Amino acid sequence: MPSMGTLVLLRHGQSVWNAENLFTGWVDVPLSETGEQEARRGGELMRETGLLPDVVHTSLLRRAISTANLALDACDRHWIPVRRDWRLNERHYGALQGKNKKQTLDEFGEEQFMEWRRSYDVPPPLIEPGSEFSQDGDPRYQGIELPRTECLADVVTRFLPYWESAVVPDLQAGKVVLLAAHGNSLRALVKHLDGVSDADIVGLNIPTGIPLRYDLDDDLQPTVRGGTYLDPEAAATAAAAVAAQGR
Amino acid sequence: MPSMGTLVLLRHGQSVWNAENLFTGWVDVPLSETGEQEARRGGELMRETGLLPDVVHTSLLRRAISTANLALDACDRHWIPVRRDWRLNERHYGALQGKNKKQTLDEFGEEQFMEWRRSYDVPPPLIEPGSEFSQDGDPRYQGIELPRTECLADVVTRFLPYWESAVVPDLQAGKVVLLAAHGNSLRALVKHLDGVSDADIVGLNIPTGIPLRYDLDDDLQPTVRGGTYLDPEAAATAAAAVAAQGR
Repeated sequence: MPSMGTLVLLRHGQSVWNAENLFTGWVDVPLSETGEQEARRGGELMRETGLLPDVVHTSLLRRAISTANLALDACDRHWIPVRRDWRLNERHYGALQGKNKKQTLDEFGEEQFMEWRRSYDVPPPLIEPGSEFSQDGDPRYQGIELPRTECLADVVTRFLPYWESAVVPDLQAGKVVLLAAHGNSLRALVKHLDGVSDADIVGLNIPTGIPLRYDLDDDLQPTVRGGTYLDPEAAATAAAAVAAQGR
Repeated sequence: MPSMGTLVLLRHGQSVWNAENLFTGWVDVPLSETGEQEARRGGELMRETGLLPDVVHTSLLRRAISTANLALDACDRHWIPVRRDWRLNERHYGALQGKNKKQTLDEFGEEQFMEWRRSYDVPPPLIEPGSEFSQDGDPRYQGIELPRTECLADVVTRFLPYWESAVVPDLQAGKVVLLAAHGNSLRALVKHLDGVSDADIVGLNIPTGIPLRYDLDDDLQPTVRGGTYLDPEAAATAAAAVAAQGR
């Protein structure tokens, strides 16, 4: 047993809105069948490699919760303690939530579009209170001030207090901690763990459904920068696909 | 808002071993497809009647955990806090775990068979340590003394400390509390809540998949003895079927 625990990051797989090419953010859409398969495969990888979580933390969004449920069921860890928090949610996409990505690109042009998607500190336009894809009145966010939009820097700011207060104590207790979350909340964490610069985090992408293992030393520093994917080959293939997409 | 919270009991539906007529107890078998449908229907009943849980407690067994996951997903409450504890587990069936019910009946005779199944304080024979269907070495039970068999009285004894320490505080906070559990752990609770005698609890059966609502007064006494099923007609039909089975 290591003195410090092990972190396992799992980004949820395809949702029905990913499949339809819509901006999602805090809109609570379910996984597609492909996304469910990705989650089960993630759990099988944990089972095959013997990396079995002792506790799981998820966002409040169905696609991360279902991913955790399916993955944990697949590695016979359905019974472990569960924590959920809005601070693990995906980045809030502001007024872009519910919009088609292609139409947004055509409407605003590539430069603006890429700035919203990939810049570190430029948030999309604010979502209107009470509009179709805002979360006003959603009981799960009772007592918190709902964001109207977020850039990645905002996600880092709201994620870190949860990391410090809820995840670090589990790691210090020597546990294997699964974080089932989203592209941007996981990038926020990786930025923090690996000390990635504001400029470099923009180009960093975490593949879906492939558990990413971080062993941490006593100062909570990764023993291997960038961590280790449980299926490195699949992770490399996914990274190459994303790079090709960007061209 | 009532001053005291509301309790919702949900017994898991058919498991693959129910379908095969085997004694299950603490053996961790999954729901059958029928059982999954029952769980979703339970969640739809909660959604239709507006009885939406604020927190869920489950056993450590997959059939109760999956039931909670499916039901909460169906009523859009997948994001609520989760607690799991072995004290909500099904009764341990001792040496009968994994045995066919019909064969057991033939082997031991009807009187002995019915005593094990339905008496309040006669446990089945002890399970052998290390035998196929015992839970020795299962990491989820680390730190607890595994039962080798249990009668319903034993379930009452081990369930009540969890009720007092973990469930009652949620109710006192005014929450709607879902307990997703098993025939015998729920009977233990109903015995306690309604003050059912040792003799009468033997004939009390809780149907699967139909949420049972208990409103409690400030002394944690049910305002309606026996509670109220969210689908009373289906509950009556299920009760009649069980009664006919006993003949």
